[in-house]
Amino acid sequence: MTDTEFDTPHLTLLGLGAMGTALARAWLAAEQPLTVWNRTPGRAEPLAAEGAKVAGTAAEAVAASDLVVVCLLDDASVGETLDGVDLTGKDVVNLTTGTPAEARARAEWAEQRGARYLDGGIMAVPPMIGSPESGGYVFYSGSQAVFGDHQKTLAVPAGTRYVGEDPGFAALHDVALLSAMTGMFAGVTHAFALIRKEGVVPGDLASLLAEWLTAMAGYAYGLAEHLESGDYTKGVTSNLAMMVQGNSTLLRTAAGQGVSAELLTPFTTLMERRLADGHGDEGLAGLVDMLAR
Amino acid sequence: MTDTEFDTPHLTLLGLGAMGTALARAWLAAEQPLTVWNRTPGRAEPLAAEGAKVAGTAAEAVAASDLVVVCLLDDASVGETLDGVDLTGKDVVNLTTGTPAEARARAEWAEQRGARYLDGGIMAVPPMIGSPESGGYVFYSGSQAVFGDHQKTLAVPAGTRYVGEDPGFAALHDVALLSAMTGMFAGVTHAFALIRKEGVVPGDLASLLAEWLTAMAGYAYGLAEHLESGDYTKGVTSNLAMMVQGNSTLLRTAAGQGVSAELLTPFTTLMERRLADGHGDEGLAGLVDMLAR
Repeated sequence: MTDTEFDTPHLTLLGLGAMGTALARAWLAAEQPLTVWNRTPGRAEPLAAEGAKVAGTAAEAVAASDLVVVCLLDDASVGETLDGVDLTGKDVVNLTTGTPAEARARAEWAEQRGARYLDGGIMAVPPMIGSPESGGYVFYSGSQAVFGDHQKTLAVPAGTRYVGEDPGFAALHDVALLSAMTGMFAGVTHAFALIRKEGVVPGDLASLLAEWLTAMAGYAYGLAEHLESGDYTKGVTSNLAMMVQGNSTLLRTAAGQGVSAELLTPFTTLMERRLADGHGDEGLAGLVDMLAR
Repeated sequence: MTDTEFDTPHLTLLGLGAMGTALARAWLAAEQPLTVWNRTPGRAEPLAAEGAKVAGTAAEAVAASDLVVVCLLDDASVGETLDGVDLTGKDVVNLTTGTPAEARARAEWAEQRGARYLDGGIMAVPPMIGSPESGGYVFYSGSQAVFGDHQKTLAVPAGTRYVGEDPGFAALHDVALLSAMTGMFAGVTHAFALIRKEGVVPGDLASLLAEWLTAMAGYAYGLAEHLESGDYTKGVTSNLAMMVQGNSTLLRTAAGQGVSAELLTPFTTLMERRLADGHGDEGLAGLVDMLAR
């Protein structure tokens, strides 16, 4: 059912945490007819003043629109909130943070209740929502029909990237990128620790780090080529044997600077194990297999 | 002494490993008068055919030029190679990989022998040498006079960045950037492990990773601001409490995908310790202090 008062189909949003509120504001700013619901009603009040309809219950909110966007604390909250709510004929777009396995189970759960299901993984923090120039975007996976039917609406708060019919793929891509970022942040944290007691201006190091990491991020392409071809040595300019040797300078420097190397040592250990297995001429692709075993 | 056969002052290079050979070729291509020496003489032969003079001993090589560039296996090799060699009046530029402490001790050692000392940390692999467009460069620190007098010559194989009179600073900057890169590579390795048994094309993930990591590398600026100001909470949009919560999704996903989380757990542990100490409203700056304690 579409909202007869407007040309634009009505949208329901469940969950008004920091991210849900940012999404609501972006849609309201674009004059998107919107019904919101939150477990704690107080969070909806300012949005009501901005034009949102506020539903008293999740069931009432779901009944208001064909398109239901869910942005709750975690997957368990989604199950609890929608327990017993009629989802027949609804398009459920679940932006709640979760694992690929949770997304796959939730898709099956939604389909069993007569809904079409699209999962989303948000690659942005709330201040980036509603600012296309921020570079934030959302991975989507699951029902391609839901994505196609609502892409224009979904594109209002952030860019959209559809990554496949598997409802777990949005979360998988999301977590893969955030995991890589976490590794980068760990490395950056260690780098700043190395200069902490030295006369190096942190801002100067930040500038060098940002430039260097940007230049080196392309290493992922070479690693992907090795994983795709199965030849882990082709075109390697800095092989595992060299990396292990270079790494010893990193560890000795940490020791000399009085810095704990706890963030670097697991990767060292992994490289050394692969080297000991006779793969000194490879790049890093063999480590991927060791982790995924 | 300058080489009277040429307008350009003569240069001596000690060490013809992969990096030394790449440096030699870049200088020869620029018609730089060059004397080379290597412990294993065979490595010098192809360079002789390209115009290099080959010295029979390190002492003979050092005697041939006022400017002596050293690119050996490690700091101990530098001490052994130059043991008993007259360095009086020489400008020694040491590009041998080492720690800041080794560079500082080597500077003192060289100055005691009557030389001026400049240390270098090479931010490039050999194939990047001699290709300014590769983005490779060398950090220099120590004698500003040596850097000023020879910058044009030093700039031939790779870009130059002088980072201070402290002879340890080139190595410190080098190791800081390589440590951060190691963290990023660890994260990227984990990311590929997550998709290893899924129908995601590695090259597609590489493209997303390169873009995302490039966008997120700027996080270093915010971290630097916190370290400079001492206020670790200012302007934080994703605080430690949120990061720890988000991190649990990364760990649960790794478990669900059958991927060892060994590369992520030390950073998790560090974040959790800082959070338990009541700093959930901070960014990551507090972790820097924990590592550098």
